[in-house]
Amino acid sequence: MKPLKELTKAELLVMKEELTQEYKDAQAKGLQLNMARGKPGVSQLELAMPMLDVINSSSDMHTMLGNDTRNYGDLDGIGECRRLMADMMSVQKDNVIVCGNSSLNIMYDTVSRSMVKGVNGSTPWCKLDKVKFLCPVPGYDRHFAITEYFGIEMIPVPLYEDGPDMDMVEQYVNNDDAVKGIWCVPKYSNPTGISYSDEVVKRFANLKPAAEDFRIYWDNAYCIHHLYEDKQDEILNILEECEKAGNPNMVYIFASTSKISFPGSGVSAIASSLENVKFIMSQMTIQTIGHDKINQLRHAHFFKNVDGLKEHMKKHAQLMRPKFEAVLDVLNEELAGLEIGTWIEPRGGYFISFDAMEGCAKEIVAKCKDAGVIMTGAGATYPYGKDPKDSNIRIAPSFPTPEEMHEAAKLFALCVKLVSVEKLLETM
Amino acid sequence: MKPLKELTKAELLVMKEELTQEYKDAQAKGLQLNMARGKPGVSQLELAMPMLDVINSSSDMHTMLGNDTRNYGDLDGIGECRRLMADMMSVQKDNVIVCGNSSLNIMYDTVSRSMVKGVNGSTPWCKLDKVKFLCPVPGYDRHFAITEYFGIEMIPVPLYEDGPDMDMVEQYVNNDDAVKGIWCVPKYSNPTGISYSDEVVKRFANLKPAAEDFRIYWDNAYCIHHLYEDKQDEILNILEECEKAGNPNMVYIFASTSKISFPGSGVSAIASSLENVKFIMSQMTIQTIGHDKINQLRHAHFFKNVDGLKEHMKKHAQLMRPKFEAVLDVLNEELAGLEIGTWIEPRGGYFISFDAMEGCAKEIVAKCKDAGVIMTGAGATYPYGKDPKDSNIRIAPSFPTPEEMHEAAKLFALCVKLVSVEKLLETM
Repeated sequence: MKPLKELTKAELLVMKEELTQEYKDAQAKGLQLNMARGKPGVSQLELAMPMLDVINSSSDMHTMLGNDTRNYGDLDGIGECRRLMADMMSVQKDNVIVCGNSSLNIMYDTVSRSMVKGVNGSTPWCKLDKVKFLCPVPGYDRHFAITEYFGIEMIPVPLYEDGPDMDMVEQYVNNDDAVKGIWCVPKYSNPTGISYSDEVVKRFANLKPAAEDFRIYWDNAYCIHHLYEDKQDEILNILEECEKAGNPNMVYIFASTSKISFPGSGVSAIASSLENVKFIMSQMTIQTIGHDKINQLRHAHFFKNVDGLKEHMKKHAQLMRPKFEAVLDVLNEELAGLEIGTWIEPRGGYFISFDAMEGCAKEIVAKCKDAGVIMTGAGATYPYGKDPKDSNIRIAPSFPTPEEMHEAAKLFALCVKLVSVEKLLETM
Repeated sequence: MKPLKELTKAELLVMKEELTQEYKDAQAKGLQLNMARGKPGVSQLELAMPMLDVINSSSDMHTMLGNDTRNYGDLDGIGECRRLMADMMSVQKDNVIVCGNSSLNIMYDTVSRSMVKGVNGSTPWCKLDKVKFLCPVPGYDRHFAITEYFGIEMIPVPLYEDGPDMDMVEQYVNNDDAVKGIWCVPKYSNPTGISYSDEVVKRFANLKPAAEDFRIYWDNAYCIHHLYEDKQDEILNILEECEKAGNPNMVYIFASTSKISFPGSGVSAIASSLENVKFIMSQMTIQTIGHDKINQLRHAHFFKNVDGLKEHMKKHAQLMRPKFEAVLDVLNEELAGLEIGTWIEPRGGYFISFDAMEGCAKEIVAKCKDAGVIMTGAGATYPYGKDPKDSNIRIAPSFPTPEEMHEAAKLFALCVKLVSVEKLLETM
């Protein structure tokens, strides 16, 4: 296909008319599809249903160490679940605290604690005039919501195919002591699906932060969330790399089983250096009487070990792949060669990120909505919801069926074309 | 029995020798008992085991409104569980947010949010020079730990048999705008077991706080935790009373099923005015992807309604009563009339509070420990762990068996007598 910008005004006008008619026909279909959030599909949830039978009224409710999971205790998580999460996160068990059902909540608590108590003894951030976080963009809206909530200034950093712009990261982190953190989704990034290269991870580990309380917020949300068995990304172990580089305390790693067992009823964990773990525990002992250890036991017994987790995720991949492929096939069929958008074909994670022509994202999302397909709000992948180019759109293919995804992607591609043609005509 | 202070020095010396020998004999028994924490006993935990079968792989996982509890959503809790907790807390469903497994965590979050974001728009407490909380004493050590952690100054207020010293509460709250809160366990208080009188609740509701962001932290932890069917305390509804008094936003009520279903695997809730609920939700939507709704469904299906909860608690009472009575019988047999200690016979809750002669509590707890009986640390029931009279000791009878409690109480009474005799001799 020919790039649209090479078309004449007359050709574009004809095209606009055809697309407008197609759009009206699409509207008439009365679609009702939601591609807004990274919600697992019902068939994925079904995979974990047998987990609900693993712990029942005749179960031995004790941990391997003999502690009763039904009573208070084991504030840092039961041993077998710490082992499971440690193996999933590729760290040692002693570096892991197993928490409640939401890794986002751990991230929130981590920032919140830093606000009022500082980091391992540093000045509480609420006592400082200015606190800044680096935000690779496009990124995860809920990360940005946390830092915005706490009044932390967010600085966008471009995210490339191998990770964030590390020159810029080094420039900020190594020179500005108001920069206290950076949000990272290092593997199958939300939303672009890229994974950090070894060089990027090493450059992270070798940062020389101006602020002693600078930390990398390493949200490894999709650590075993591959789409393919033969094409998988692997990233370097950031905790080990930080140790090697003499920065053992510089990273917090977060993960959960929200998209492995059940969103909202999984287990989450934070991994960090022993010194960081000790500081976190000194707060957690004030905060809670402990997390849900029966659910931890349920997870440990159901998955047994990290191989069990990985086997389970192969079943997820079988369900997710057709949905991703439905979108990618449509994008390739409908948009390849038109030069009105780019996208990456991810090997895992939950999203396909689409970059439209500048100034088109909001209008595309609006048009999709008016024809019954809800997308993530344009701009949501940027701090303060502001995409300076109004270009990035996050597609979340997990919840609908593959057939529905095909329908939704067709509509999306139609809207991209229509809005792009209109945009091109505007500038003529 | 004769008051010990009426004995002569010679009589006391004889008594000391006898008690010392008794204590040595007791030490030789090698007891190993723990009365430190309000931990439910194993037999109580067994009562809730059938709950683990209620939700299984063949269950309908949807709420009454049709939401899938296995996926994201229902941030404020599923409807049926909000109803259950609302009825337990004697408030309307719309006033309740069902949270995770720990009401302590909600209290921590409530204080933490006030530190960094203020209360419904007030100045964040971390920006103020001084923040104070009133702390009825003796009280719950974990409450005091939260306020101490956040650097909030704690002001002890005497707790009488009908509630806190309300003259003092009014004096502080109505005049000092640095006073932002008061910790209350209004029913079967931790540790004294008393319940607030109607007059006290009404005086609370009619406070005229100098600070707009003053709140009552109403930890109704033992709202349905009666020991008897025929002798039960009831307290006035603080939320209603606050509304009537024109102070609708002045109270946060906390509760959980930690001591109904499973400690650590129950559900917790906060109840407050609609305005407060809205403000809390505006933070919670940043903090978490939601709480464990499968566990909420499990609770709703198992207990069905508040009558189910109350029936369940009758079974708890049957198990708890003999333990409380074992302690009270021993205290009455061994110490009545000696005038070396006072205690209240609670009608519910988890504790028996004992006031020894001034300057004796630490030594009594130490002596118990040296003979194998672990008590809550003396002073723990006071802010900063400092009981100015070194007098109060919290007895937690729930975890051991009634027979063990009898043994432990005998040793405790022996230690009280021995330390008291030594104290009296010191002053002669």
